Amino acid sequence: MGNCVDCLTNVFCHSKNTNIRVSLPAVCFVWQIAMIILFGVFIRYDEESDAHWVEFRRENNITSDIENDFYFRYPSFQDVHVMIFVGFGFLMTFLKRYSFGGVGFNFLIAAFGLQWALLMQGWFHALNPETGKITIGVESLINADFCCAGSLIAYGALLGKVSPVQLLVVTLFGVTLFAVEEYIILDLLHCRDAGGSMVIHAFGGYYGLAISWVLYRPNLHQSKRLNGSVYHSDVFAMIGTLFLWMFWPSFNSAITDHGDGQHRAAINTYLALASSVLTTVAISSMSQKRGKLDMVHIQNATLAGGVAMGTAAEFMITPYGSLIVGFCTGIISTFGYLFVTPFLEKHLKLQDTCGVHNLHAMPGMLGGFIGAIVAAAADESVYSREGLINTFDFEGEFANRSVGTQGGFQAAGTCVAIAFGLVGGAIVGFILRFPIWGDPADDNCYDDEVYWEVPEDEEAIPPVLEYNNHMIHKHQDISESNFSVEQS
Amino acid sequence: MGNCVDCLTNVFCHSKNTNIRVSLPAVCFVWQIAMIILFGVFIRYDEESDAHWVEFRRENNITSDIENDFYFRYPSFQDVHVMIFVGFGFLMTFLKRYSFGGVGFNFLIAAFGLQWALLMQGWFHALNPETGKITIGVESLINADFCCAGSLIAYGALLGKVSPVQLLVVTLFGVTLFAVEEYIILDLLHCRDAGGSMVIHAFGGYYGLAISWVLYRPNLHQSKRLNGSVYHSDVFAMIGTLFLWMFWPSFNSAITDHGDGQHRAAINTYLALASSVLTTVAISSMSQKRGKLDMVHIQNATLAGGVAMGTAAEFMITPYGSLIVGFCTGIISTFGYLFVTPFLEKHLKLQDTCGVHNLHAMPGMLGGFIGAIVAAAADESVYSREGLINTFDFEGEFANRSVGTQGGFQAAGTCVAIAFGLVGGAIVGFILRFPIWGDPADDNCYDDEVYWEVPEDEEAIPPVLEYNNHMIHKHQDISESNFSVEQS
Amino acid sequence: MGNCVDCLTNVFCHSKNTNIRVSLPAVCFVWQIAMIILFGVFIRYDEESDAHWVEFRRENNITSDIENDFYFRYPSFQDVHVMIFVGFGFLMTFLKRYSFGGVGFNFLIAAFGLQWALLMQGWFHALNPETGKITIGVESLINADFCCAGSLIAYGALLGKVSPVQLLVVTLFGVTLFAVEEYIILDLLHCRDAGGSMVIHAFGGYYGLAISWVLYRPNLHQSKRLNGSVYHSDVFAMIGTLFLWMFWPSFNSAITDHGDGQHRAAINTYLALASSVLTTVAISSMSQKRGKLDMVHIQNATLAGGVAMGTAAEFMITPYGSLIVGFCTGIISTFGYLFVTPFLEKHLKLQDTCGVHNLHAMPGMLGGFIGAIVAAAADESVYSREGLINTFDFEGEFANRSVGTQGGFQAAGTCVAIAFGLVGGAIVGFILRFPIWGDPADDNCYDDEVYWEVPEDEEAIPPVLEYNNHMIHKHQDISESNFSVEQS
Repeated sequence: MGNCVDCLTNVFCHSKNTNIRVSLPAVCFVWQIAMIILFGVFIRYDEESDAHWVEFRRENNITSDIENDFYFRYPSFQDVHVMIFVGFGFLMTFLKRYSFGGVGFNFLIAAFGLQWALLMQGWFHALNPETGKITIGVESLINADFCCAGSLIAYGALLGKVSPVQLLVVTLFGVTLFAVEEYIILDLLHCRDAGGSMVIHAFGGYYGLAISWVLYRPNLHQSKRLNGSVYHSDVFAMIGTLFLWMFWPSFNSAITDHGDGQHRAAINTYLALASSVLTTVAISSMSQKRGKLDMVHIQNATLAGGVAMGTAAEFMITPYGSLIVGFCTGIISTFGYLFVTPFLEKHLKLQDTCGVHNLHAMPGMLGGFIGAIVAAAADESVYSREGLINTFDFEGEFANRSVGTQGGFQAAGTCVAIAFGLVGGAIVGFILRFPIWGDPADDNCYDDEVYWEVPEDEEAIPPVLEYNNHMIHKHQDISESNFSVEQS
Repeated sequence: MGNCVDCLTNVFCHSKNTNIRVSLPAVCFVWQIAMIILFGVFIRYDEESDAHWVEFRRENNITSDIENDFYFRYPSFQDVHVMIFVGFGFLMTFLKRYSFGGVGFNFLIAAFGLQWALLMQGWFHALNPETGKITIGVESLINADFCCAGSLIAYGALLGKVSPVQLLVVTLFGVTLFAVEEYIILDLLHCRDAGGSMVIHAFGGYYGLAISWVLYRPNLHQSKRLNGSVYHSDVFAMIGTLFLWMFWPSFNSAITDHGDGQHRAAINTYLALASSVLTTVAISSMSQKRGKLDMVHIQNATLAGGVAMGTAAEFMITPYGSLIVGFCTGIISTFGYLFVTPFLEKHLKLQDTCGVHNLHAMPGMLGGFIGAIVAAAADESVYSREGLINTFDFEGEFANRSVGTQGGFQAAGTCVAIAFGLVGGAIVGFILRFPIWGDPADDNCYDDEVYWEVPEDEEAIPPVLEYNNHMIHKHQDISESNFSVEQS
Repeated sequence: MGNCVDCLTNVFCHSKNTNIRVSLPAVCFVWQIAMIILFGVFIRYDEESDAHWVEFRRENNITSDIENDFYFRYPSFQDVHVMIFVGFGFLMTFLKRYSFGGVGFNFLIAAFGLQWALLMQGWFHALNPETGKITIGVESLINADFCCAGSLIAYGALLGKVSPVQLLVVTLFGVTLFAVEEYIILDLLHCRDAGGSMVIHAFGGYYGLAISWVLYRPNLHQSKRLNGSVYHSDVFAMIGTLFLWMFWPSFNSAITDHGDGQHRAAINTYLALASSVLTTVAISSMSQKRGKLDMVHIQNATLAGGVAMGTAAEFMITPYGSLIVGFCTGIISTFGYLFVTPFLEKHLKLQDTCGVHNLHAMPGMLGGFIGAIVAAAADESVYSREGLINTFDFEGEFANRSVGTQGGFQAAGTCVAIAFGLVGGAIVGFILRFPIWGDPADDNCYDDEVYWEVPEDEEAIPPVLEYNNHMIHKHQDISESNFSVEQS
């Protein structure tokens, strides 16, 4: 019966057709079948996951199975995996009536995105020119998860305002653009960006903002009643925040060099994140009446240190350098939530539901430039000759690159990432404006009712209300008569 | 006072005695003491966890502590551990008033089950005939967790309809049956089943279904008001879903061969799960008015790919093969929730609360047969000679077994698992029908009130209602008078 | 407008000033800046996380990067990290209106505490006398997390009754005291305490209890309405419980010896925890009418086995010894919640919100003495000569210490930890009584409204109530007229 109201509401009040009964299954089926075909043509196991490993080991004088890359990277992979699905997913459950969409659509688009990412990244980075095959291993899985992250960040800016079909389109193009900009930044410009300040956060953030800008909804205030949290939805969002915060050291160290590279990236990120928490709390408290803290800041700006360390984490930025990065980005990010998001909405007509500008775009950009500075300041006495070569991969055609040049290329890489995000997002935004994607009307945003079968809450159902009243009456009758059977 | 109502309700309305104040503590104490005695007689550390390891290492020319199996398997163990306690536990919190029972009884029976599993599996697999001792290490802990999983799956079919004492009985017999069927399948038939499609999922699923069938409650509709979710309980269940989904690659690779075995199993499972998500969403959307998604499908059928890859994950099934498995099982599992569960309930008188038929029994059975086909199709050119021997363990008395024969035995193993589940479950079901276990009455199912001290919610307590009204009045008075002290 | 009520309430009803708009930001900024300066002066990467690792590796004939301590300890570190932030944090969300404070302040103080811990522990344990620098690696991060745990335990006793500024003070002194007692116990007395029964749990527990005793609030009953859980807050708390329970084997094994030490500690803890669950359930059920279980016991006492194994986990306590420890501490801890906490509150004027006495102080003390007994009973035939030296680190000046002497020192260490907790806590308690810290009034405890911007729940806002009524009316109208558009 509740559906009746819902149905009527849809028919009479909203001009948009949110029926996705054909489009969503069609996209899912067609794209998944395409994945199967393309995987069949291109994707194979690499030598460390193939049954030929025993022979490979012998031929290459590898003394033990523990040298398989699986044991270097699988724990980090699982932490990254948790960040992508629980971290990003639960961070987006904070809205009072969009928790299903937050965690559920995140799940859908990441599951598609990682398949497409394996292909796209494979074509650019791991295509064997002789066999025409892409070989994958645990590092490919981590990179695929990273690649999804760009699109999930973009989802943060769009949360509640788009249909799942639109999100799949955002992911298809997002992963494609990601693979291209990553190829340019990491391969052509030979930048280092292990934790993806540039390629993931700056790109993903500006990509989402550009899409959101093109999809501006002038009457979004009609959904204002649902654009906020309730007590328990904020607690759910803290699950996302904490898993992101805790596992960010794994994120930034997942694909760095074996040994000191992974070790140092984890330490630096751990410190930057800790520092972010204190400055976020400080600014949040300063900004509110009576010094009260705002959950939005705690849920988001505490993570800015991890974003900003994405590039520099593997460098010798020093422990106190990491603390300084976290210190500054915690402040900047919280100020972003206080001032920049309202400004963007009011003056630039840019609606950014989760504030990805403050958590990803700006700290990501900063992280890119911090990486450039730290790279330019690298010194043989600090790194050792071999350490410098290892850390910046000054080998082959880049053997003679100076650290100053490297710093310049790092800065250029950051600009490339932003440019890809803005231009790509604007184009994708226009594609999403075609009236075929089933997006919600302005007065129907942030509402799970549109795309989910939502259980009727007890309180809203007349029979149960009666039941409750009945219980309260019984309760009162009994308490009045001082009945005391419960002592038995 | 609220308890008074509850108490009266129990006394007058329900015919069944749900008082477990004697039986539950008695079972817990007696069984736990039995565990201590049996552990004292039988269980010892293995050579990798014993203080003699330093000597063992020297004698066996092991170059480094990193060669200790702990470092190969502990990260996977912890992931599996999370799946058992948070994954299964939170997946069963979806009912509006059975979240305590879902996560709490899961906790209880897994904590008992893993102890009993160490003994049962030890007697069958790790009993040293000379010393009469079982030695345990990290792989034993993983296997014990796996063994519990069978009984936790069975709990899914019984959720809300049985007492904790009954669940402990289900677990006692479940673990026992598991150890026997596992011995037959893995040792006698020499099947491979690293992720347990057969021994865990097919067995556990049919075991639970058979028990549920014997315990059929014709008047269960009297509890219908509680057999459903509310908004936040569905979000809690997503915690379970996601941790299961994310860590399933660890589940299927936890006890596979060091090196390529673990590596490949993780990749295959990762891919199958991703594929399942897209087809689950597609079918869920197709089946509902206006293409809305159903949380039940998203919470469950997305996992079917992991179940179905339990046997074949360590084989060279190829990446696209994994996608195909996930594609098909996502569809089949969602169809199961749409059509098979209602059919079973209506025509076979089988009440399956969580739909374990669709998530475990059917995909597990399919996974067994998929494993048989992939094994039969194994080829020396694909695996290499050594790889084939390694993967299928064609050593000792099985050195001359052909892959075709192996395939036949894999299929036979699947049938053994199902037979054990069905027959064992039927017998255990009859044991549980004795009227001594404190199970709830038909109008009292799915209700935490029966076995838990449930906090009275604010809304239901008269004093707080008054307090709230009071607050609203104050609120209105103040807003009417435009009082503005808050600006200070 | 709702804030207006709140504001008035604060102005007129409560005598205390809870405005922390100056103090909290000031403390956060000043302390964080101090951390940066001290890190700049003292903290450097150790040889395994420094870019010189490649050279270090060659010079020390380390064959592979996998020998870097990162790969031995990072998975355990991440598990410990989850326990600190999600485990402790969510365990403290159980109160109906203090979930923000539970998880949020836990986040804040752990983020500060770990930085201060790196310095304090570094000065005592890792200061290079030549360079005057502290070098840090993954083991330092684990120890820093451990050190925070002491203060987070203390927070459990104070939950809902103190301001975040007070908590930061508790943490500053807590970490300082921790580092000193740890130095005395581990270095001077040469005790073994890998999982910290003594140095973490006994110290932290008594530290919190002593503070709480000094801060006794005679009129705390005025906040009684908020000192309890609601249904969903209890489910949130189970997230904390389970992550603590699952990862406790990693906690107790995180810094034990490579190889058998880590392996054995994990097994022992796993078993003790399993055993605790069964006896907790038994006692909880026995103590309640009709055998109902109490969530408070399940959330807490199930963990007692892990606390009590903190010292002995790395010893050859045997698997059945571990079960016995879990068996007894599960009982003792549950009895603590039933009888000791009420007794302490009534007769010793000690208010212990989370019952840290029962989960940390008492089991921690027991764990210390269990460790002493197991150490005193150690035997060369069980450990092997080398194993004994390895396990108890009988090297250098302690080469000739007997196991009996070691047992005596272990017991002495436990007493030192308790003494530090009690005396230190009393002093810190007096410091916290200065009326400058912004703590809440007695009728204002356990309430997130005091320090957080709390979203107004839908049910409490008049406009939405109207909207809901409107919906119900529409709903009824429609159902009366049997409108059936929804079939389309």
